[in-house]
Amino acid sequence: MTTIIKLDEILSISKEIDAISAMEEGFIKYSNGQTVVPPVAELLFENPPGDVHIKYGYIKKDDFYCIKIASGFYDNTKLGIASSQGMMLLFSQKTGQPTAILLDDGYLTDIRTAAAGALAAKYFAPKNISAIGIIGTGGQAKLQLEYLQKNTPCKTVWVWGRSAEKAQKYKDDLGTNFEVHIAKNPAEVAKNCNLIVTTTPSEKALLFAKDIKPGTHITAVGSDTLDKQELDSEILKKADLVISDSIPQSKSRGEIFQATKAKAIVDEKVVELGTAIQDSSLQRTTENQISVVDLTGVAVQDIMITQSVYKAYIQNKN
Amino acid sequence: MTTIIKLDEILSISKEIDAISAMEEGFIKYSNGQTVVPPVAELLFENPPGDVHIKYGYIKKDDFYCIKIASGFYDNTKLGIASSQGMMLLFSQKTGQPTAILLDDGYLTDIRTAAAGALAAKYFAPKNISAIGIIGTGGQAKLQLEYLQKNTPCKTVWVWGRSAEKAQKYKDDLGTNFEVHIAKNPAEVAKNCNLIVTTTPSEKALLFAKDIKPGTHITAVGSDTLDKQELDSEILKKADLVISDSIPQSKSRGEIFQATKAKAIVDEKVVELGTAIQDSSLQRTTENQISVVDLTGVAVQDIMITQSVYKAYIQNKN
Repeated sequence: MTTIIKLDEILSISKEIDAISAMEEGFIKYSNGQTVVPPVAELLFENPPGDVHIKYGYIKKDDFYCIKIASGFYDNTKLGIASSQGMMLLFSQKTGQPTAILLDDGYLTDIRTAAAGALAAKYFAPKNISAIGIIGTGGQAKLQLEYLQKNTPCKTVWVWGRSAEKAQKYKDDLGTNFEVHIAKNPAEVAKNCNLIVTTTPSEKALLFAKDIKPGTHITAVGSDTLDKQELDSEILKKADLVISDSIPQSKSRGEIFQATKAKAIVDEKVVELGTAIQDSSLQRTTENQISVVDLTGVAVQDIMITQSVYKAYIQNKN
Repeated sequence: MTTIIKLDEILSISKEIDAISAMEEGFIKYSNGQTVVPPVAELLFENPPGDVHIKYGYIKKDDFYCIKIASGFYDNTKLGIASSQGMMLLFSQKTGQPTAILLDDGYLTDIRTAAAGALAAKYFAPKNISAIGIIGTGGQAKLQLEYLQKNTPCKTVWVWGRSAEKAQKYKDDLGTNFEVHIAKNPAEVAKNCNLIVTTTPSEKALLFAKDIKPGTHITAVGSDTLDKQELDSEILKKADLVISDSIPQSKSRGEIFQATKAKAIVDEKVVELGTAIQDSSLQRTTENQISVVDLTGVAVQDIMITQSVYKAYIQNKN
């Protein structure tokens, strides 16, 4: 029997599970070569414009293999429908039988991305966080702050977004638990914060090296394509630690790709996340260092979050 | 709301729908360039051995896009589980929203293959069928005969299989509606039949040119890889008509691939199924001609069968 897990159940279970530990385990297995993740399959549409990405893979000697279907149909917003759609599928790695279908509408991708951000902060952010800076005001901007609270319960937040109205809404939505300041520009976020998360689809740098204070950690979440960029490449040059979630992916997308292309850094400067979290000598050694973690999104995250939700669902039923 | 259609419902609906007409429409659209079908995605397993193929695509200006997940885990039989597993997914081509999940365990692939065989016979077999020859005794050997009956209701059957026991079971399962002869070898099938369907995973030719009588039609269903072959290449040389379900696929798999590699035929001899069924001058013009249709399996068949079952399911509900 294939288990069907609906969105409302996924929303509820996602609050129970330890997604950050799941990401930690996944990134370690990925960097240790224990995963099989073939190239992403793609299907494109012209009218209306849309793209579908099929990501699939497994952790060796595990119970399941996973297929994620994620689409973006950008005219959907005109119809009042979310542009992101999709589902996660789990199959037995022993027999190929379908185990579970998670009708998550893309939500678990948001969760695993936020949990990876929290994992990055856990290992690379300075011990004392004066204020958290958030660049961007969308759904991921909210989730990143929510997941950071699990290890980094700082309540002072500086937010910047292109739309003043959306920045105000971000502040309002957070309510009275947080002290939220709306920054006039990204530089003002950098001036006031030593833990910054960038979450926009910008194709031009928003933060610059001169703005970044010693002792700052930055997690770059937004850039996951050839064209997107939130950090000026000089930031990666200035940084003491530059971490990639996937070194192979950083050769073709994200901040590290941009900085390497601009010859601001060389390949040897970059350490993979799953390697760095296993070796404290590859982590922050003084509070004054600048660290950058570039997250482009790795299929092992999808495998881990889907398994975690499925296992919690089954445990709840029993 | 995503519609979930279970195997028992699929089995029942598959008997109601006109799968042969669905294949006809699909092959015409495919040959006319109205489909988008990217390369197949593949995931391999070592222990136990298994392979997963993800086929996906759409017909332009249609309502849906389709993803088929099909796996073969060949140790499953030791566990009493079918080696083929899988499901079919339908999504809106306008918004990406999931429309339906068909938990077919690979069954619809069998149906669409049998329906394509019946379509081939409809257009290329001689008018008067003296006897139907079936090479192979498995599930597809049964389905091919069942679907042939819709246009070619000949009740005299010659069957050959490597296992005498399985050939006897094939005969017994068909019951008294058919006059079934068990052939001593494939040549005896060819001697007695003018419509032959080959359904085995053989990697060596089973039928040879000297055995094939004038006025015979052969549909080759078994060979769908680089290595499989059921027809000696001289048969394709001798044939008046050589039809491929997909000319691009015939460059790397199936009987036409083997015959071209052996220099028995040239590319120019081959006509695509969807082209040939639109133009009677590309079909049999005399009863004495020999015709071969090579079916390697095309994603448009998956798209068509999945849509047909879904539409019938919805119509039944209303």
